[in-house]
Amino acid sequence: MSIKPGDLILFYIDSKRKFIQRVQPGKILGTDKGLIRHDDVIGRRLGEQISTSRGFKAYLLKPLPVDFLSAMGRVTQVIYPKDVSLMVYLAGVSEGAKVLEGGVGTGHVTAVLAYLVGEKGRVFAVDIDEAKLKKAMENLDKLGLTNRVVFIHKDIREWDGERDFDAAILDIPDPWNSIRVIHEALKPSSPFLAFLPTVNQVEKTVAGMKGLFTDIHVYETLVREYLVLQDGTRPSPRMIGHTGFIVFGRKIV
Amino acid sequence: MSIKPGDLILFYIDSKRKFIQRVQPGKILGTDKGLIRHDDVIGRRLGEQISTSRGFKAYLLKPLPVDFLSAMGRVTQVIYPKDVSLMVYLAGVSEGAKVLEGGVGTGHVTAVLAYLVGEKGRVFAVDIDEAKLKKAMENLDKLGLTNRVVFIHKDIREWDGERDFDAAILDIPDPWNSIRVIHEALKPSSPFLAFLPTVNQVEKTVAGMKGLFTDIHVYETLVREYLVLQDGTRPSPRMIGHTGFIVFGRKIV
Amino acid sequence: MSIKPGDLILFYIDSKRKFIQRVQPGKILGTDKGLIRHDDVIGRRLGEQISTSRGFKAYLLKPLPVDFLSAMGRVTQVIYPKDVSLMVYLAGVSEGAKVLEGGVGTGHVTAVLAYLVGEKGRVFAVDIDEAKLKKAMENLDKLGLTNRVVFIHKDIREWDGERDFDAAILDIPDPWNSIRVIHEALKPSSPFLAFLPTVNQVEKTVAGMKGLFTDIHVYETLVREYLVLQDGTRPSPRMIGHTGFIVFGRKIV
Amino acid sequence: MSIKPGDLILFYIDSKRKFIQRVQPGKILGTDKGLIRHDDVIGRRLGEQISTSRGFKAYLLKPLPVDFLSAMGRVTQVIYPKDVSLMVYLAGVSEGAKVLEGGVGTGHVTAVLAYLVGEKGRVFAVDIDEAKLKKAMENLDKLGLTNRVVFIHKDIREWDGERDFDAAILDIPDPWNSIRVIHEALKPSSPFLAFLPTVNQVEKTVAGMKGLFTDIHVYETLVREYLVLQDGTRPSPRMIGHTGFIVFGRKIV
Repeated sequence: MSIKPGDLILFYIDSKRKFIQRVQPGKILGTDKGLIRHDDVIGRRLGEQISTSRGFKAYLLKPLPVDFLSAMGRVTQVIYPKDVSLMVYLAGVSEGAKVLEGGVGTGHVTAVLAYLVGEKGRVFAVDIDEAKLKKAMENLDKLGLTNRVVFIHKDIREWDGERDFDAAILDIPDPWNSIRVIHEALKPSSPFLAFLPTVNQVEKTVAGMKGLFTDIHVYETLVREYLVLQDGTRPSPRMIGHTGFIVFGRKIV
Repeated sequence: MSIKPGDLILFYIDSKRKFIQRVQPGKILGTDKGLIRHDDVIGRRLGEQISTSRGFKAYLLKPLPVDFLSAMGRVTQVIYPKDVSLMVYLAGVSEGAKVLEGGVGTGHVTAVLAYLVGEKGRVFAVDIDEAKLKKAMENLDKLGLTNRVVFIHKDIREWDGERDFDAAILDIPDPWNSIRVIHEALKPSSPFLAFLPTVNQVEKTVAGMKGLFTDIHVYETLVREYLVLQDGTRPSPRMIGHTGFIVFGRKIV
Repeated sequence: MSIKPGDLILFYIDSKRKFIQRVQPGKILGTDKGLIRHDDVIGRRLGEQISTSRGFKAYLLKPLPVDFLSAMGRVTQVIYPKDVSLMVYLAGVSEGAKVLEGGVGTGHVTAVLAYLVGEKGRVFAVDIDEAKLKKAMENLDKLGLTNRVVFIHKDIREWDGERDFDAAILDIPDPWNSIRVIHEALKPSSPFLAFLPTVNQVEKTVAGMKGLFTDIHVYETLVREYLVLQDGTRPSPRMIGHTGFIVFGRKIV
Repeated sequence: MSIKPGDLILFYIDSKRKFIQRVQPGKILGTDKGLIRHDDVIGRRLGEQISTSRGFKAYLLKPLPVDFLSAMGRVTQVIYPKDVSLMVYLAGVSEGAKVLEGGVGTGHVTAVLAYLVGEKGRVFAVDIDEAKLKKAMENLDKLGLTNRVVFIHKDIREWDGERDFDAAILDIPDPWNSIRVIHEALKPSSPFLAFLPTVNQVEKTVAGMKGLFTDIHVYETLVREYLVLQDGTRPSPRMIGHTGFIVFGRKIV
C-alpha cells in the first residue's frame, strides 16, 4: 500500500528530528539535515527510507502517540510520554470512551486521548485560556484528530456541562478547586487523574479527594533510557529528573 | 444504572485486596477481611460501598486495566503495570488493532492488549507452552476478554501464520531468534517491542534488529509511589528495583 | 601479619552474613551456616578463608564502615550506608574533627563518624533516650570506637555544652526546634546536616535554617545494585525505595 | 578567628558560583556577578557575607570536599560527588591510610582522598598521561593538598612500586588488565574499587576479580535534589542520568 496525498506521515531522521506532516503535492519539509520533497514520497511504501537534499537518511513511518509531541512545535510545559503513558493506562482510556480534560496545554494529552478513544469516543477539552485552546486545536488538526474532540472555552472549576464521563484528567494548577464538579461529571467508579509538579499541590488535591474518591494513589515516573553500543552499553547520561506527580482516584458515591 | 447478574465487578477493599468477579446470584467472595455475598451486591450502584461479613468496607468498582493482575491469581514472573503501560503506549495499541503477542505468561499483557484493541481488534497470543496458554485463557475468560484473542499453541520463533500486524510484543527469553519472522509478520513501519530482564538479552536483541528496524530504543521504567499523610508525605519505602528492559523499534523495508 | 587475640575481625560468609567480633581464645561464632571457632582463626592471615562447621566458606576480613551495621544486631529505623556515605562526605568529616550528633539511634552514624574523626577527633553523641544511648555505647564498644565518642544524655534541643564544632548531624524528628542551639554550637561556616523521612519535616527544617545557614540543599539518594552474571547482568530486582531526605547547610554569621 | 593571607577560602555566591582561592593581598576574584577584592576579605570572619562589585552577596566559607570540583576549572569526564562519596566510604578511607589511585583525571578524586587520609596518610596518584598528572598536581596545589600525594607517571597496569595499600581506586578504561598488580599491591582484605561508565567494562572487571577478591558488588548511585519553596516543594527537574558504575571487592589470599 503506497503513500498517497493526504496521508499523515512521520519523517524520521533521528530521535531528535521527527516531523509529522500530511502529504501534499508540491510541499517541502525543511530540516537542518536538508529538505524532503513530498512529491518524492508519494508512491513510496511506509518503512522505506529516502534521502534528504543533504544526503541524510529519513524513514517514512506511520505516526504513533509517542511521536505526537513532534507535531506541536517548540513546547515548554508539557506532559511527557513517560507520564502520559501511565496516566492513560490508569484511566483505562480505550475505544468509545468519553473523557473530560481540564487544562489542555498544547494539546499533547488531548491528542493521545483522542487517539485512544477511537472513532466513537469523545474528548471534552476544556481550558480557561482561549489562546491555548486555539493552539491545541491547530495541533490536533495537524494530527487529524480534531473530529474526536470537543474544545470548550471555560473555567473547568465551574464545569456544569456534559456528564457521565468515563474518566477525567486535569492539568491545572489547583485541581482541588474543581474536585466537586469533576466528581459530579464522572460516572460512578470512574477514574480521576491530576498531573501536578509540586508536593504541596499533591497534598491539597489528595485532601480534597477524601470521601469522594477511593483507591487514591500518587505516582512519579522515572524512565531511564539505555544506550546499546558495541562494548559500550550503559544508561543514558541524560535523564529527566522531575516533571510532575500523577494523582489517581476512583469516584465513589 | 444498578449492578446486575453477569456484570464484571472489582471488589475493592484496599490496594492489596482487589478482587474481580462476575456477579452471580448465590455466589460468595471470600477474603481474609470477611465474606461478600453477591446477592447483596445486585441492585447496588457502582461506586457504592458495602460491608464484608467482618465489617470491613469494600467498594464496588468497574475493573480497569490496572486491576487485571488481581484476576490472575498468585503470579510470579509477570510484566507489571509500570512496564505494560509504557509498552502499549509505545506500541500505539488502540481500537481495531491487530497485535501479535509472543509469550503470554499468565495473560496479563494479553488482557491489556485485548482491552485496548476493542471489539474489532484482535490479539494473536502465541506460546510454546500449552499449560501457560490454558492458564492465560482462563484468566482472560474471567475478564470477559476471550473473544478478542486468538490463542495459538506454537513456537513464535517459527511463526508463519497471520501477517500484517499493527504491533508485535514479545516476552520470551530469546527474541533475537524470532526477529526475522516477526519482521515479516508486521506491517511496514509497525512497532516491535520486547521485554527483557537482562542487559545481555537486550544487547543481542538490539543487534538482531539492526537493518530491520529503526528508531530503536531501550527503556527502563521506575515508578515511585508517594504516601500522602498529614505531616507525613514521602516517597514509599517500598519500590520495585528492576523488572526488565523494554526494547522498541519500527519495521523498515 | 597474622590474626591474634584482640583483633577485630569481619567474618564474611556472604552479603547477608557478615559478623564482626573481637578474636578471643575459646570463643565461638554461631551462624545458620555453621560454627566458627576463634581458636581456628588465630594465626591465620587477613583475607584467608576458613570453613564453618557445616562446610561453608567464610573470609576473615578487616571491618570497614560499610560493615558496621552488621555489629548492631537487628535494627529497624537506621540510616543506611547509602545515606551515611553522602552525609559524612557533605560534612567533610575527617581526622581531628569535632562533630556533634543529635539522635544516636543504634549508633550506626556515631560509629562511622568515630571511624572518620580518627584518634584525635571527637564525636559528641547526644540523645534524649537513655536506653538508646546505652545500646549505642554497646555497639560502639563492639567496634572498639568508644574512646572517640562522648555520650551525653540530654535533649539536643536544649544543648548548651561544648561549642566550636566542625559539623553537626541530626537524626531527630523535629530538627527545626534545635536549629538555634546547633547554630551557636557550630564554628562559623561549618556544615549542618539533618536526616528526615518526610517532605513536611524537610520544609520546616529548611524554613528554620533561613538566615542562619547558606548553601542549603536537600538530597535523596537512590543506590541501585547490579547483579553481574554470565549472560544475566541486570539491576537488582530489590531496591530500597525511600529512607529519608538529607538536608544540608553551612553556618553564616 | 579572622581570615588572613594564606587562608584557603570558598567564595560562595550560589550553587553554580563557588570559587576556591588562597587569600592574597592585592588579588582580585573576578566573576560574572562582579569582583571581590581579597583585601576586603582579610580580617573578616568565616561565615560572613560581603558584596561583589556589582552588589551580589558572597559568603566566605571554608572549603569542603563537596566544593573541590570548583577548584578544577571546566572539567568534562569527572567522577561526581555522588559517586566519590560512596567510593571513599566503601573504601573506608580515613586518617593515616595509604591509598593507590590509578587514573587521576583532573585530580578530583585525588583531592578527596588526600583530604581524608590526613597529615600522615599518603595517596599514590598514578597516571599514564603526563599532561593529566600535571594538571592534577596544579589542582591539588590550589587546595593545599599536594604534600599528601605522591604523583607518579606510569602505566598502572605495570605497577611494581609501593605495596601494602589500604585501598585502591581505579578510574581507567580497562581495570581488568591491572587487577593482578593491584591485588599484589593491596594489603590482604583491603578494598579495591573501580569506576566504569559501561556495563561491558563492569562485566570484564568483575570476571577478572573472581578468585582474587570477595564481597564483590556493583553499584550505581542516583542523587535527587529537592527544591524546597513556599508551596512549591518538588524534586529538581534536573538530574544526572548516568555517570558510571562502582565496582567493589576485597582482596583475598
